[in-house]
Amino acid sequence: MAGGKLQDRLQAEEDVRVGVDRFPERQPIGTAADELGRDYSEPPPAPLFEASELSSWSFYRAGIAEFVATFLFLYVTVLTVMGVSKSSPSKCGTVGIQGIAWAFGGMIFALVYCTAGVSGGHINPAVTFGLLLARKLSLTRAVYYVVMQCLGAVCGAGIVKALVGRALYESAGGGANAVGPGYTKGDGLGAEIVGTFVLVYTVFSATDAKRSARDSHVPVLAPLPIGFAVFLVHLATIPITGTGINPARSLGAAIIYDSPHGWHGHWIFWVGPFTGAALAAVYHQVVIRAIPFKSSAPY
Amino acid sequence: MAGGKLQDRLQAEEDVRVGVDRFPERQPIGTAADELGRDYSEPPPAPLFEASELSSWSFYRAGIAEFVATFLFLYVTVLTVMGVSKSSPSKCGTVGIQGIAWAFGGMIFALVYCTAGVSGGHINPAVTFGLLLARKLSLTRAVYYVVMQCLGAVCGAGIVKALVGRALYESAGGGANAVGPGYTKGDGLGAEIVGTFVLVYTVFSATDAKRSARDSHVPVLAPLPIGFAVFLVHLATIPITGTGINPARSLGAAIIYDSPHGWHGHWIFWVGPFTGAALAAVYHQVVIRAIPFKSSAPY
Amino acid sequence: MAGGKLQDRLQAEEDVRVGVDRFPERQPIGTAADELGRDYSEPPPAPLFEASELSSWSFYRAGIAEFVATFLFLYVTVLTVMGVSKSSPSKCGTVGIQGIAWAFGGMIFALVYCTAGVSGGHINPAVTFGLLLARKLSLTRAVYYVVMQCLGAVCGAGIVKALVGRALYESAGGGANAVGPGYTKGDGLGAEIVGTFVLVYTVFSATDAKRSARDSHVPVLAPLPIGFAVFLVHLATIPITGTGINPARSLGAAIIYDSPHGWHGHWIFWVGPFTGAALAAVYHQVVIRAIPFKSSAPY
Amino acid sequence: MAGGKLQDRLQAEEDVRVGVDRFPERQPIGTAADELGRDYSEPPPAPLFEASELSSWSFYRAGIAEFVATFLFLYVTVLTVMGVSKSSPSKCGTVGIQGIAWAFGGMIFALVYCTAGVSGGHINPAVTFGLLLARKLSLTRAVYYVVMQCLGAVCGAGIVKALVGRALYESAGGGANAVGPGYTKGDGLGAEIVGTFVLVYTVFSATDAKRSARDSHVPVLAPLPIGFAVFLVHLATIPITGTGINPARSLGAAIIYDSPHGWHGHWIFWVGPFTGAALAAVYHQVVIRAIPFKSSAPY
Repeated sequence: MAGGKLQDRLQAEEDVRVGVDRFPERQPIGTAADELGRDYSEPPPAPLFEASELSSWSFYRAGIAEFVATFLFLYVTVLTVMGVSKSSPSKCGTVGIQGIAWAFGGMIFALVYCTAGVSGGHINPAVTFGLLLARKLSLTRAVYYVVMQCLGAVCGAGIVKALVGRALYESAGGGANAVGPGYTKGDGLGAEIVGTFVLVYTVFSATDAKRSARDSHVPVLAPLPIGFAVFLVHLATIPITGTGINPARSLGAAIIYDSPHGWHGHWIFWVGPFTGAALAAVYHQVVIRAIPFKSSAPY
Repeated sequence: MAGGKLQDRLQAEEDVRVGVDRFPERQPIGTAADELGRDYSEPPPAPLFEASELSSWSFYRAGIAEFVATFLFLYVTVLTVMGVSKSSPSKCGTVGIQGIAWAFGGMIFALVYCTAGVSGGHINPAVTFGLLLARKLSLTRAVYYVVMQCLGAVCGAGIVKALVGRALYESAGGGANAVGPGYTKGDGLGAEIVGTFVLVYTVFSATDAKRSARDSHVPVLAPLPIGFAVFLVHLATIPITGTGINPARSLGAAIIYDSPHGWHGHWIFWVGPFTGAALAAVYHQVVIRAIPFKSSAPY
Repeated sequence: MAGGKLQDRLQAEEDVRVGVDRFPERQPIGTAADELGRDYSEPPPAPLFEASELSSWSFYRAGIAEFVATFLFLYVTVLTVMGVSKSSPSKCGTVGIQGIAWAFGGMIFALVYCTAGVSGGHINPAVTFGLLLARKLSLTRAVYYVVMQCLGAVCGAGIVKALVGRALYESAGGGANAVGPGYTKGDGLGAEIVGTFVLVYTVFSATDAKRSARDSHVPVLAPLPIGFAVFLVHLATIPITGTGINPARSLGAAIIYDSPHGWHGHWIFWVGPFTGAALAAVYHQVVIRAIPFKSSAPY
Repeated sequence: MAGGKLQDRLQAEEDVRVGVDRFPERQPIGTAADELGRDYSEPPPAPLFEASELSSWSFYRAGIAEFVATFLFLYVTVLTVMGVSKSSPSKCGTVGIQGIAWAFGGMIFALVYCTAGVSGGHINPAVTFGLLLARKLSLTRAVYYVVMQCLGAVCGAGIVKALVGRALYESAGGGANAVGPGYTKGDGLGAEIVGTFVLVYTVFSATDAKRSARDSHVPVLAPLPIGFAVFLVHLATIPITGTGINPARSLGAAIIYDSPHGWHGHWIFWVGPFTGAALAAVYHQVVIRAIPFKSSAPY
C-alpha cells in the first residue's frame, strides 16, 4: 500500500508541466475537477464554531504568532516609508518608492514562510476573511486572528512613531493609507478591490490542496509568489492609495497617526480588501474548483 | 516495481549536477538524446483538432483562467507604467523604469505559478504559438487561448484607463508599445524577435518533460526563470520598443489607447514575437532535442 | 519499516498548506507541541564543552568556512557602500541605497547557501549567540565561530580600504555603523534589537527541525528568507544606524576605519544584536516550541 | 535494497539543518570528509582527453548551447548598458546601474537554469577553467566550451552594435570592461580576482555532489545563488572595472568595440578571473573537501 501510494505521488510529480496543456485531465462538463482519482483528499469544511479549539494551546499560540508577525510587518514597512519620506524632494538618496514596495512584499514573503506552520501565515484580515469564506478555518478562529492582527499592527506603527519622533512621523503622513491627489474615492476603492483580488487569488492558488497533491512545486514556493503578489500590487497602486490590501496595516497606521486626514476614507481600506477577497474566493471555488457542477458535496 | 521506479527516480535526482559536464550521457552522433533509457515517457504530439476537448469543462475553465490572468497582467503592469509616467521629468519619486520591468516579470512569475495547473499558464499568444509548433496543444485550444488572452488584455487596459482618467492615460501613451526615437522599425522587429526567443527558450527549457524527469530542480523553479526572462528582456528593450514580446499585451494597450501613434507599426508586435517563438521552438526541437538524428518518431 | 517511514514522510509533505489553519494539530493547553507523534526527533541539546570536537577536522574546517564567508561578506558589502558614497550628492549614477540593501541581503543568501553544509552558515555572532542559547551548538564552538567571524570581517574591510584608497574610504565613513543624525542612542539600540529579532526569528523558523520534518518547503528555501530578512532590515534601518544586526560586520568596519567617530557608540552594535537574538530565542523556544508547558525535557 | 537506499536518502533530507552545527559529522583530523558512509559516490576525475567524446552528438550540442547562451547573455546585458548610458547625466529615467547588475545576474540565473542539463551551464571561461582544475570535465571539452563562449559573446555584442548604431555604442564605451578612473591596474586585477572567487566558490558549493546527496535543497536552488553571486559582484565592482569576472564577456565587448581604450588592460580580464577561479578550486578541494588529509584517492 505504501508502494502504491508512493508510485502515485511520483507519478504526480512527473505531471508537473508548466506551459503544457492539461488535456489528459479533461472531464465532461458538469463533472467537478475533484473527481480525477488523484491521490489527495479534500479536508472537510471547518465548522463555524468549535468549542474544543478554545482549549488547545496551538490556538493561542497561532494568535500570538499572528500578533508578532503583523507587529514586525508594520515595524519594517512603516519605518521604510519614514526613511524614504525624510529625504526630499529627490528620493535618490533613499531606497526609493520601489524599496517601499520591496519592504511590503519581502516582509510578507519572510513572515508567511516563518508563520505558515504555526498559524497559517495570514498576517492580513482580508486573507483571513477569504479563507473563512472558503471554510478553511472556523469563525471563532477568524475573529481571533483579525483582532490579534489589528493589535499587532497598532503596536508596530506605535514603535515606529516612538523611534522616529512625532515630527517626522506626521510629516510623512504616518504611513497611513489615503486616496492620492487626482483620484476619487471610487478609484481608490476599485484599486483596493482588484489589488486584494490579486493577493487572495495567489493565496488560494498556492494553498490549493488539490494542486499541492498534484504539483510538487506548489508548496515548495508558496510563500514566494504570495510575497511577490504584495510587491506587485504596491508597484502599481502606491500612487493611488498608498496600497492597503490589508485592513490591519491600514488600521494600525491610522490609529497611531490619528489625524482627520488619516481617517478620511478609512472605510475604503476595509470594504475594498474584503470585497476583493470575497471575489477571489468565489472565483477560485466556482470557476477553478467548479462547485456548481457538483451535486453532492459543497465543493 | 514501485521500488525499482523509485530507485530510478532517486538516481535521477542525484544526477543533478549544475556546472558539471554530462559526459556519462554521451551518445553516438545520429542517436537522439531521448533514447537514454531514463524514467520518463514523452507525451504523444497533441492532435490539431480534437472534438472531445470541446465538451470538457476543463477546456472552458482553462480559457477563463487565461482571460483572468491576462486581465490582471495588463491591469498591474499598465497601472505601474501610468504611475511612473505621471511624475516627470525625474522618475526618482516613482518605482522607476526598473520598477516597470519588475511589474512585467513579477506578474508573469506569479500568474504562471497560479495558472500552470489550470491552463498551462501561457498568458501570451507567442508562448501559445511556440507550444503549438511543438505540438504540445491542439490548434483548437491554441486559437481559443489567444482569443481569451486578447480579450483579457483589452479589459485590463480598459480598467486602467477608467481608473487613471483619459488625460493621464493619453499623456503616458497608454502603455502601448511603439518603436522608440532613434530606432528604425527593423531595430524594433529585431529586438522583439530576440526578446521573445529568450522568453520562449526559457519556457521550453523549464517545461521539457525529459529534463523534468531527470533533474528534480526543473519543475520546482519553473515559474521563476520564466518570470525572470520577462524581467530581463524589459530591462534591455524598454528604450527600444517599450518591450512587447506578448502580442496580447500590445494589442490590449493599443485598442484602449486607440490613437494613430499606438497603431503605427503595431504589426511589429505580432510578427516579431511569433518569429522569435518559432525560432525558439526550432532551436529546442532540432538542436536540444535532436530531431534530425531520429528516424522514426517526429520528436 | 522503510515503507512506513516513507509513508509518514509523504504524508508530511501533503500537510503543507500555507494559509490554512492547523486545527487538526490542536492539543490541550499544557501539552507541548512536540508530542504530536510526527516523524522527527529533536536532537539532544549540545553540551557546553566537548573535548572530542577539538580533535575533528570538520571543527577547524567550519571555522575556516566562517572566516572566508565573513571576509567575502564584508568585501562585497563595504565595497558597494564605497561605490554609492563616491558619487554625490545624487545617488542616481550608482546602485543606490537600495543596492546596498541588496548587497547585504544577497550576500547572506548566497553565503548561507554555500556554507550551511560546512559550518551551519552563521556568518554573524548574533546568530551564533541565538543558536547557543537554544543549545544548538557548544560554547567552545560558538566562541571559536565568533572569533573567526570577527577576523574575517577585519580582513574583508581591510581589503576594501586597500582597494579604494584611504581618501575615499574615510570620506565614506568606512562603511562603519553609527547612529544617524536626528536619532538618539536609544533609538539606535531599539532599531538594532528589533532588526536582529527579525533576522534570528527567521533563522529559527527556517531551521526548526520539527517544521523541517513536517513541511518539505522549509529546508528547500531556508537561505532565501534568511537573506531576505537581512535585506528588509537594511531597507528599514539604514537611515537610523546604517544597519548593524551583525557585530562582526560592525567591528570589522570600525577597526579598519579606526576613527573616534567609528567607535562612538560601538557598544550599541553588540548589545543590540545580542539582545535581539536572545529575545528571538526566547520567543521561539517559549511560545512557538512551548517549553513552559512541558514538564520533563528542557524543550 | 531499494528500501534501504530510500531510507538513507530520506534520512539525508532530514539532516538539512541550516544554522545548526554539524557535530554528529565530526571526524578525526586526517580523515577526509568523504568517508562518512553517506549515500553518494564521487564521480571519477574526468580524463584530459577522451576520443570517444568527439563522436557523440551531446558533445557538439553542448557547445552549441554554450554558444547560444553566451550570445543571449551579451545581447541582453550590453543592450541594458546601452539603455542606461543613453540617458544622461541622471540615470533616473533608466533602469539604473542597479538594473545593469540585475541584467547580468538575472541572465546567468535564467541561462544556467536552461542549459545546466545540456552543457552544465558554464557560460563563462573562468567557470570552465575552475571546473577543469577540479577535473570535472576533459581538457578537450574545456577548450571547446571556451571557444564557443567567446564566439557567442562576439556575436551578442555585434548584434547590439547593429541595433543601437555606432554612435551610441561608442559613446557608451561599447559595454567593454576597463579600469575606472581613480583605480590602478592592480586594483582592477584584485577586484576581478576576488569577484571571480565569489562566483566560482558559489558554483562549487552549489554543485558539490557530496552536498547534493546530503542536502536536498542544494540542487533545487543551484542556479539562483549562482545568479545572485554575479549580481552581487556587479553591485560592488561596477565602479572599479565595470565588472568582468567572465573573460568571454570582456573579449566579446572589446572585439566589437575595437578601440585602444577597450583593449587597454584587457589582460586583466583574463588573468584576474582565471586566478580567482583557480583560488576557488583550491579552496574548495583543499579546505572544504579536505584533500590533504586523504592518502589514497586524489580527492
